[in-house]
Amino acid sequence: MYLVGAGPGDPDLLTLRALALLQRAEVALYDNLISPAILALLPPAAERIYVGKRRADHAMRQEAINALLVEHARAGKRVVRLKGGDPFVFGRGGEEIDTLSAHGIRFEVVPGITAALGAAAYAGIPLTHRDHAQACVFVTGNLKDGSVDLDWVALARPRQTIVVYMGLLSLPVICRELVAHGLPRDTGAAVIQQGTTATQRVIAGTLRTLPAKVARAKLHAPTLIIVGNVVRLRAKLSWFEPKSKRGEAS
Amino acid sequence: MYLVGAGPGDPDLLTLRALALLQRAEVALYDNLISPAILALLPPAAERIYVGKRRADHAMRQEAINALLVEHARAGKRVVRLKGGDPFVFGRGGEEIDTLSAHGIRFEVVPGITAALGAAAYAGIPLTHRDHAQACVFVTGNLKDGSVDLDWVALARPRQTIVVYMGLLSLPVICRELVAHGLPRDTGAAVIQQGTTATQRVIAGTLRTLPAKVARAKLHAPTLIIVGNVVRLRAKLSWFEPKSKRGEAS
Repeated sequence: MYLVGAGPGDPDLLTLRALALLQRAEVALYDNLISPAILALLPPAAERIYVGKRRADHAMRQEAINALLVEHARAGKRVVRLKGGDPFVFGRGGEEIDTLSAHGIRFEVVPGITAALGAAAYAGIPLTHRDHAQACVFVTGNLKDGSVDLDWVALARPRQTIVVYMGLLSLPVICRELVAHGLPRDTGAAVIQQGTTATQRVIAGTLRTLPAKVARAKLHAPTLIIVGNVVRLRAKLSWFEPKSKRGEAS
Repeated sequence: MYLVGAGPGDPDLLTLRALALLQRAEVALYDNLISPAILALLPPAAERIYVGKRRADHAMRQEAINALLVEHARAGKRVVRLKGGDPFVFGRGGEEIDTLSAHGIRFEVVPGITAALGAAAYAGIPLTHRDHAQACVFVTGNLKDGSVDLDWVALARPRQTIVVYMGLLSLPVICRELVAHGLPRDTGAAVIQQGTTATQRVIAGTLRTLPAKVARAKLHAPTLIIVGNVVRLRAKLSWFEPKSKRGEAS
């Protein structure tokens, strides 16, 4: 069984190993964020199984996915489990291969370009920079009952870039809490929608200005939030021109 | 000019975009950590320029590299600047394209599998996991005058995985300071040498035991340190068998 990171969206950001495995797959189980262009790389005869998860029934579905992986691997098929980004960064890849391991099934893990790396590169925002950020931290920003379960003390530090996966709904809370815990209100911040794809959009501002700008822009998932003064470098380092670019302030 | 992440070592972890650019390059400027197998993908006629940096004369050399990039790009050549891992994660890629931007030279940034993702996948260590780590932070561990300039308060937090690039010499200081700032002494920790390659070695233990184990193992750069209880999952999730494996305790 092959647990394969499919990267952030642009099919050109697949690894050579991922492509080779896709082209030989007999069964592919895939999530929400796998693009049609990537699924098109599977052999026509390969069985495609959509296992995308909705928020409400998350835990139940993960067990069902684990059981499906075991079932197909035991049938002796070449099975590829395709995950958006990297399987070991907020991908629950560890849980899936844990189940395989418990059933004595051999597996291989193929890392992928995680969304943070893809979106940062295509938005012209270095995640680290000698003058601005000596550390970079990845978290998720799921909203629960109006609050976000993050370690604000660890996040609100100088010279650190923060990348928040799945945080669009939480953006106002995140900006407010980071300021409440000590980050300057004029710290750079940006939201990147569908990074690396032809529909990429970037809305940049500061912790103070970003929530209102993003509300006006009517962004939708998948998005990534980047907080830190590296965001300001985008003014000089932006290079990617998605087809849908609409001359947004950035 | 193309700023291209070459990934963590295994040539199969190049992206499709990186391979396409390598195969069309007329000039390639590359660092220490680019493997011969990756350079072999360049056309035979391509000019290969080694710009590997030694520690002592770091700052001076960066300016010289920037000037070389401008010179070759201005000569109208298809120039690829190849960096180990990802160009925006401790790669100084931002500084290099800043220079290009200042000279009005167009560029593209191709993200790569950063060492943390590659080494974690091949060592069987998920960087995040619902039961163990909800955040993952990347830092560098360069030793200066016997100390390491890291934000220990931000790092020594529960439910977080810490990845330290370039930290082999600093390992004893890192383990000591993390414990001094509150992490339990039995927190999992591992050093991965030459992750994803045939000469990968993994030494795993805890913050208490790892420094002595690593000293005995006589590891050498490049290495990556992973700290957090996700390291314990390796006992079940390890799958990669490098050629040089010597039955090391892990």
